[in-house]
Amino acid sequence: MTGAPRVSRRGLLGGGAAAAGVAGAFAAGRVSAAEPASSTAPVASYPFHGERQAGIVTPAQDRLHFVALDVTTEDRDELVALLKAWTEAAARMTQGASAGPVGAVDGPSNAPPDDTGEALDLAPSRLTITFGFGPGLFTKDGKDRFGIAARRPEALEQLPRFSADVLDPARSDGDICIQACADDPQVAVHAIRNLVRIGFGTTAVRWSQLGFGRTSTTSTSQSTPRNLFGFKDGTANIKAEEHDALGRHVWVGADDDPKAGWLAGGSYLVTRRINMTIEVWDRQSLDAQEQFVGRTKGSGAPLSGGEEMTEPDFAMKGSTGPVIPVDAHVRVVHPDLNEGVRILRRGYNFVDGSNDVGGLDAGLFFIAYLRDPRTHFIPLQRAMSKQDALMEYLRFTGQALFAVPPGVAEGEYVGQALFA
Amino acid sequence: MTGAPRVSRRGLLGGGAAAAGVAGAFAAGRVSAAEPASSTAPVASYPFHGERQAGIVTPAQDRLHFVALDVTTEDRDELVALLKAWTEAAARMTQGASAGPVGAVDGPSNAPPDDTGEALDLAPSRLTITFGFGPGLFTKDGKDRFGIAARRPEALEQLPRFSADVLDPARSDGDICIQACADDPQVAVHAIRNLVRIGFGTTAVRWSQLGFGRTSTTSTSQSTPRNLFGFKDGTANIKAEEHDALGRHVWVGADDDPKAGWLAGGSYLVTRRINMTIEVWDRQSLDAQEQFVGRTKGSGAPLSGGEEMTEPDFAMKGSTGPVIPVDAHVRVVHPDLNEGVRILRRGYNFVDGSNDVGGLDAGLFFIAYLRDPRTHFIPLQRAMSKQDALMEYLRFTGQALFAVPPGVAEGEYVGQALFA
Repeated sequence: MTGAPRVSRRGLLGGGAAAAGVAGAFAAGRVSAAEPASSTAPVASYPFHGERQAGIVTPAQDRLHFVALDVTTEDRDELVALLKAWTEAAARMTQGASAGPVGAVDGPSNAPPDDTGEALDLAPSRLTITFGFGPGLFTKDGKDRFGIAARRPEALEQLPRFSADVLDPARSDGDICIQACADDPQVAVHAIRNLVRIGFGTTAVRWSQLGFGRTSTTSTSQSTPRNLFGFKDGTANIKAEEHDALGRHVWVGADDDPKAGWLAGGSYLVTRRINMTIEVWDRQSLDAQEQFVGRTKGSGAPLSGGEEMTEPDFAMKGSTGPVIPVDAHVRVVHPDLNEGVRILRRGYNFVDGSNDVGGLDAGLFFIAYLRDPRTHFIPLQRAMSKQDALMEYLRFTGQALFAVPPGVAEGEYVGQALFA
Repeated sequence: MTGAPRVSRRGLLGGGAAAAGVAGAFAAGRVSAAEPASSTAPVASYPFHGERQAGIVTPAQDRLHFVALDVTTEDRDELVALLKAWTEAAARMTQGASAGPVGAVDGPSNAPPDDTGEALDLAPSRLTITFGFGPGLFTKDGKDRFGIAARRPEALEQLPRFSADVLDPARSDGDICIQACADDPQVAVHAIRNLVRIGFGTTAVRWSQLGFGRTSTTSTSQSTPRNLFGFKDGTANIKAEEHDALGRHVWVGADDDPKAGWLAGGSYLVTRRINMTIEVWDRQSLDAQEQFVGRTKGSGAPLSGGEEMTEPDFAMKGSTGPVIPVDAHVRVVHPDLNEGVRILRRGYNFVDGSNDVGGLDAGLFFIAYLRDPRTHFIPLQRAMSKQDALMEYLRFTGQALFAVPPGVAEGEYVGQALFA
């Protein structure tokens, strides 16, 4: 058997092809990340390299696998070598190739394969892979682990606790995060699994989260999906087409943080694991549900009338008070009441088995990209904790904050400007 | 707001439509369960009613949500009423309708909706819903709970423990199971969530399992998927087209069990939650992996040569012993070495977050349908436990056995013959 031809990874690549070759081989199928696919002409894959990391304004794919890792080495060179290896593998996988050779053609087969194989027959499925760095990468237990403590962004510190938080440390924080989004969940799982495999000995999984259904639109070409409250979610999200809003609310500006110039053009990533008490929610009347949200369940229109995309009229009076109640979710988080702040949400529905009260462990894995957590997340979450009617049906079981470096140019590795 | 038109569930049904109406409205889109779709002409939905329950020989859908419930009532009438309500809701949902009215048009909205809403805009996605009854439904703590203990099938008792089992009671057993398979995971989750909701007060969730990628083919029209070892799985599975084999190995015969005539035409369902130690597996050489499985990783051909569908030649000799090793998985479970026994597998890959050793909690949720666990499962599992090379990379963390009644005729409810 040992001399027989081996797997050639989805029939596309010889065993020895380098990442640079992959880029060329797949160039024909590429689109620019700045040109999101319309829903009628879906693209097969997105480029890995570019000015921004893919997976932020990229039209939200249907499925998610997200992992937070702790760095277990104290050796800076090992960490940099891993970032290089990850960059190469991520570039390959997003283009539909394997992470590395699965036994080279006519090559040795007495070594472990450099790809685990479960996506060999699957399409690229619009896979994007997005990397972020947590506070613990810069300093841990007061120690400057990798000589980068001085370049830690001011805003990158552990988020505060909010009321109703029941955070599980085993589902929170992490030194590095990797978000894999794809239309085929096996493609997303394969990507995370192989990056974890490549990191073996240098990183260890801290927590990981699957999401089965997107709850946001990040492009005007997408229809609005529903969360597990059964309501449309993400209607007022920032879209890829809103270039000015992205610059104001999502991308870190060149002068935002003099200490952390490497982050300019990047973003901050907040995750919150939000358990919904769906069994209690399901026993509320339709009227009550709509009052809590401030929108109708069917069309998603504001209770003040119109259609899904109609702006809510918070001043409109009903017989017993404002038509959109003062504690309705849509009002509490609206930019008009939050100093104009908007965020780019990219969350996913999850079910993780059962809970201990005879129900499902289910909810929303909240992901948001924003310019600064101090202005764009913490005040918003505090307002929500204080007065949002939905809070009664939510339990926050995990959270994390990461700095997401800008895109990777050909020949560079992710986060290179931080370590250069 | 209260007088406004309400949601009409995917635009298909008025609020008051009964299950019988649903059946008619969707007749045009139906196919017979005995005529599986070809891969080139996928159907939108499968009928709920028929001689067999759907979701067994139905071409395996891509995604799974499976739940095991404990019955919390001791009232037989309540249980029967639930089975009727479940039958009606399942018939509706498999046809793309909601579980029940989401606030009837011009109807009251001060009651909880009879559908949770998160699948309102989604296609039927080939949803199938399959019900099974565990041993605990018949007798619990020595008590004949619902007057059906005398009709318990002989073979329906708790499975034995096998070596390498580290079964978690919280992931094992259950009085009733519901398997929802669909191509869209949100449709499968929606179905289970609504059936659990309908059961509130009568049943409670014991455990639940999502599967993101099918690992079997149940029709010759399907291509073979891969498990998280990266190998094709299900190559030798019984297919829907093999009518004689189904009669011999999957369907309970009319004379199989005189006490349990209600189960004739049904089947037994075995689930095993199989954790793979993927981090260890990934460090084995390609050669070693192929020797453990007995097939090549790329094409899935037996090591004795040929292509995926070629029968393995166990007698073929290599330089150091048989080409297919004596402990290769394909040999250990082959029908020729197991008194001709075959089973119908319908398993799914899963990842449930992280484990406590810095890796992923991942593996295969094994589902098999078979005529009798005493002849078709227990001996096979014992053989595997004793000599299968794969066992070193597997940990069995949950298992359950259910009796799956035959199909439901229009106007009947699931399991009616058991309670009649």
